[in-house]
Amino acid sequence: MITKDISGYYQFYPCIVTLVGARRKDKVNFMAAAWNAGLSFRPPLFGVSIHPKRFTHDMIVDSEEFTCNFLSMEHIDIIHGTGRVSGRDYDKVKLFSIPLEKSKVINCPTIESAYAAYECKLVHRYPVGDHNFFVGKVVAVHYNKNVLTGKNLLNPEKINFSLYLGSNSYISADPDSVQIMPSEIEIPMPQ
Amino acid sequence: MITKDISGYYQFYPCIVTLVGARRKDKVNFMAAAWNAGLSFRPPLFGVSIHPKRFTHDMIVDSEEFTCNFLSMEHIDIIHGTGRVSGRDYDKVKLFSIPLEKSKVINCPTIESAYAAYECKLVHRYPVGDHNFFVGKVVAVHYNKNVLTGKNLLNPEKINFSLYLGSNSYISADPDSVQIMPSEIEIPMPQ
Repeated sequence: MITKDISGYYQFYPCIVTLVGARRKDKVNFMAAAWNAGLSFRPPLFGVSIHPKRFTHDMIVDSEEFTCNFLSMEHIDIIHGTGRVSGRDYDKVKLFSIPLEKSKVINCPTIESAYAAYECKLVHRYPVGDHNFFVGKVVAVHYNKNVLTGKNLLNPEKINFSLYLGSNSYISADPDSVQIMPSEIEIPMPQ
Repeated sequence: MITKDISGYYQFYPCIVTLVGARRKDKVNFMAAAWNAGLSFRPPLFGVSIHPKRFTHDMIVDSEEFTCNFLSMEHIDIIHGTGRVSGRDYDKVKLFSIPLEKSKVINCPTIESAYAAYECKLVHRYPVGDHNFFVGKVVAVHYNKNVLTGKNLLNPEKINFSLYLGSNSYISADPDSVQIMPSEIEIPMPQ
């Protein structure tokens, strides 16, 4: 069927959730964001779409930096929880017992239990409808080398990915479903 | 470990692949893009990061519209293939026997075998490092109602999602891994 009704706007899910970290003075906050994407290799840029009413939004505008933290399904309580309560009302770091790790380049911490995390400096903030799109330059990468394959891919045998399906639902990837395709495409006939 | 080396820049994978469709006169082209994200609810905006050297890039700049097509793992040859060859060299629609579906609002077709597809009108093109970020307003949604759950989520029992792990690797989601979390977070103590 063809419709103008986007319903839950869930057609492009599942999406990897990133926990966006921000800091203002002594306050550290994290929010779960499924609307994120890689943007550029050189320099490495990563983007997250954030509603201006989110507490994290103005913290990033003020500090001009943020972290993006990728947690496995074992930490689903933190992932879901940081998306459901506001840093205006709660100290989420205490509430969810989030273990912090000092960043190397920026002042905002990452999450120690993340299998990978980015330290980002804000380089653009672009208006996108009812959200703003924050573009960060990745200035440092935290990761556990043990979760990588030889090709520097994340290893699904080692990471139970937390993919958001929308609403309150999450799903993980199936390591047995991995398909490796050829680098060169077979062209059946000259054109 | 903490490093400045992004290696393959694969830390935020796996990502749902979208096949970005563009049209210029009679030429229709599709390219696979893993760097995509939801951006806004009202209006519904969807974004894709595209390198300026990609054939699709200028087709979208000229036509100011594009489609985003989501295909299941059964169509992995099309998904992987459209990411590996250029529309400059081949007619990918013929090469990969891509079944087209007429769009309702725009002139660029969607892919008939997609479980969901968006018709998008270009509303912004933002520079992001070595890529450009195309922001499209979703003006029509194509989908198969049979693949949705009661909550309008995509049903992993019905769709074999094609998630890109990077390099030549793809993975699907595991329907048995679905976790449904509570809407309300339990707050252990007043703060």
